[in-house]
Amino acid sequence: MLRARGGWQALRCCASLPRARRAARLRVREALEAREPAGEVKVQGWVRSVRSQKEVLFLHINDGSSLESLQVVADPSLENRDLTFGSAVEVQGELVKSPHKMQDMELKAETIRVVGPCDTWLFPLKMKERHPLEYVRQFPHLRCRNNTLSSLLRIRSEATAGIHAFFQDNGYVHIHTPIITSNDCEGAGELFQIETSNEGRESTEKSHFFNVPAFLTVSGQLHLEVMAGAFTRVFTFGPTFRAENSQSRRHLAEFYMVEAELSFTESLQDIMQVMEDLFKTVTTTVLSKCPRDVELFHKYIAPGQKTKDRLEQMLKNKFVTISYSEAVEILKQTSQTFTFKPEWGCNLQMEHEKYLVKHCGEVPVFVINYPYDLKPFYMRDNEDGPQHTVAAVDLLVPGIGELCGGSLREERLPFLESRLQRLGLTDAYQWYLDLRKFGSVPHGGFGMGFERYLQYILGVGNIKDVIPFPRFPHSCLL
Amino acid sequence: MLRARGGWQALRCCASLPRARRAARLRVREALEAREPAGEVKVQGWVRSVRSQKEVLFLHINDGSSLESLQVVADPSLENRDLTFGSAVEVQGELVKSPHKMQDMELKAETIRVVGPCDTWLFPLKMKERHPLEYVRQFPHLRCRNNTLSSLLRIRSEATAGIHAFFQDNGYVHIHTPIITSNDCEGAGELFQIETSNEGRESTEKSHFFNVPAFLTVSGQLHLEVMAGAFTRVFTFGPTFRAENSQSRRHLAEFYMVEAELSFTESLQDIMQVMEDLFKTVTTTVLSKCPRDVELFHKYIAPGQKTKDRLEQMLKNKFVTISYSEAVEILKQTSQTFTFKPEWGCNLQMEHEKYLVKHCGEVPVFVINYPYDLKPFYMRDNEDGPQHTVAAVDLLVPGIGELCGGSLREERLPFLESRLQRLGLTDAYQWYLDLRKFGSVPHGGFGMGFERYLQYILGVGNIKDVIPFPRFPHSCLL
Repeated sequence: MLRARGGWQALRCCASLPRARRAARLRVREALEAREPAGEVKVQGWVRSVRSQKEVLFLHINDGSSLESLQVVADPSLENRDLTFGSAVEVQGELVKSPHKMQDMELKAETIRVVGPCDTWLFPLKMKERHPLEYVRQFPHLRCRNNTLSSLLRIRSEATAGIHAFFQDNGYVHIHTPIITSNDCEGAGELFQIETSNEGRESTEKSHFFNVPAFLTVSGQLHLEVMAGAFTRVFTFGPTFRAENSQSRRHLAEFYMVEAELSFTESLQDIMQVMEDLFKTVTTTVLSKCPRDVELFHKYIAPGQKTKDRLEQMLKNKFVTISYSEAVEILKQTSQTFTFKPEWGCNLQMEHEKYLVKHCGEVPVFVINYPYDLKPFYMRDNEDGPQHTVAAVDLLVPGIGELCGGSLREERLPFLESRLQRLGLTDAYQWYLDLRKFGSVPHGGFGMGFERYLQYILGVGNIKDVIPFPRFPHSCLL
Repeated sequence: MLRARGGWQALRCCASLPRARRAARLRVREALEAREPAGEVKVQGWVRSVRSQKEVLFLHINDGSSLESLQVVADPSLENRDLTFGSAVEVQGELVKSPHKMQDMELKAETIRVVGPCDTWLFPLKMKERHPLEYVRQFPHLRCRNNTLSSLLRIRSEATAGIHAFFQDNGYVHIHTPIITSNDCEGAGELFQIETSNEGRESTEKSHFFNVPAFLTVSGQLHLEVMAGAFTRVFTFGPTFRAENSQSRRHLAEFYMVEAELSFTESLQDIMQVMEDLFKTVTTTVLSKCPRDVELFHKYIAPGQKTKDRLEQMLKNKFVTISYSEAVEILKQTSQTFTFKPEWGCNLQMEHEKYLVKHCGEVPVFVINYPYDLKPFYMRDNEDGPQHTVAAVDLLVPGIGELCGGSLREERLPFLESRLQRLGLTDAYQWYLDLRKFGSVPHGGFGMGFERYLQYILGVGNIKDVIPFPRFPHSCLL
């Protein structure tokens, strides 16, 4: 065993100075949040600004742990030509109270080591310039060095953690629903098909890697429903795909969805309560964990949109609920003209959704009980008439329109059988019918588009600006 | 606004009895963990056993919140013919201390409502039978009603939460790396290619949805490296894909990977420390959150394998480290014969990995510093000789072989340029070279296969038994 441990000697040794060993490594965020001066510390990051004065050299360094950079104060003798905007540095010194109003703490540098110089001439980002999002989007491999994207990534990360925490705290079991599937969730959208890359285009039906055609998932709902037959609460949070018009500001080919299913749930209101709780809990988490990052969006990306006030209002009040039938009445009674005439039995268009949200006071609005003929086979028949509806719900929010959709699912075998038969889908959904034979319970669930959620809370118009990497065809990376 | 709220009236009302409103709804886990008798409670779930005696009716009900079921004690008058194994019930009554040794609490039923009957004749699972995993795998939509799969899903869920928590607690930013990509991570494996489903096979090059060929990701590493240029710690945890031999017990076409990148990291040991910490922290979480679920695997799925003892041993000791060169020497010196003769410069085969793990005492073993020519272009040149190596590491574990792989990445532009040039990849990786021009820092990272990790801690031989849904071609669902 001793022999085995000898391998450590082969490890590359850190080439730092002896004194570097004693200094505590601190992240920028930790340094900024320190209440008391610390002894010798070491901070690493990228230079966001350099200001050389006669008697003092000011740097700001950022390591991605916060929007704010740490001010470094140094003797001008520490300046060197590689110490430029964009370079990576390791600064060692004393963390002290700052005499300046802008920050509590600053780093009095004793040594500055340029770890990685930056070719400022070629670097597409420039010091202290506020580059337009469209400009930065051209450099998918460098745009994380830009404040807006790095703020977005911290927000995405906190929102992701918040979503997992919400469901865990409420006793949900997380399920990884399949990404490759033969199921198309009945017309949820255009599908991407999968082949092995060496199959080539001339190959025959038989060469399918999976023996049958396989697609990228459009929703994990049906797989979650399977699990809802043994677990009373399940959720998934993963990528979903639609092969539609990815060039628009509104759609992505690849996006994330939060989906949940609850069993022993007889009322649509229970589902809506979970949607509202999730929405408010995650928003509260994000606002408390990254206030400055969110502020950047509200101030500079969506100025004048009162996104902040809207969010505060949203968090304080219960979401409004109207039925689809009421919604159509509201749309019919207004003097506003629409491109699509509102009519019972027709889908609500973006223009209708926006009007309804405005009508209700620019707050999130649940629209419930949609026409039976508009909705997929799995939604629960309300058995009403003459305007026949299903127990479905959409959540509309200001600026975005539909953000979440959900329903009670049809748990009654005879209803489901006759509906699938009329649609000619009985064979394809034999397994789904099967679930209704063995301890079937009333259940329901919903899905929420993660990127649209981010657009809503941040006030971002183009959905491409809330993802880590600009999707095809923008990028050489992707 | 009042008008809008009227929509609630349209909601389907829960048809429960008046007394049901007063009873607190309790999950099985909560009922089992209760310390004191509770008043009137309501428990919902699926019947796992029915035992009718002359004076008393015993039920066990399970709702997926724990492996253990709750014992229900009822008057035989409450029995009815729908109250069978597999049926879904809602039981109302008093939660009391149990006189039996098997459990602390039991439910004294006052009412039992069969919410969903079960056709026991057709139901493929039978009461109190321990079905083989291969049998249950035939029913992808029903196997979550089986103890083994439901235990697995709770474990997966806790492990997933544990992974997210580990990285969050250590200041990592979570990144959703792209699933659809044009990047193949240089030979990490066979790729799946994407087309829109209506493109058809006869379509020409021009019709690519994304204008260029697009694939399912095999690794998020290169995208994480981009982010490591602005964040000192990033991670991702998502699906990855390989179009190879999905029929084997060892490989999946779709599986999950945890990947992390750390900047300002000059030593492979730092990466290994994170791998070891992650591994131990998540395992400790799983063992403490689902002890009974893990026990089920150790006792019944992998009996005699001493998986439990091994885990305890693993958690107590530091992982062993040997260099690749030492590993080859060990393999050469043994009297054991291998199908593949061990030789410096050749890949370690499964048989070699197993021997090394045994040699080191059936504990996890880091093997470091692999031959330069065996590893991809992005791994950092150790500049040693005559046996030229890179700063790469694989973690081998008992029963599985390779579980994690990582390396320092080549951050030095000249090294990377000459290597890419020799490989003829300069054009494809211009963006990767670019990263080295603008504040490039020493960095490294690793990936861990989630399913293999689960196989290791649970002692499961077939990788298909640690996923929620059996993958193609087993399933009608997928």
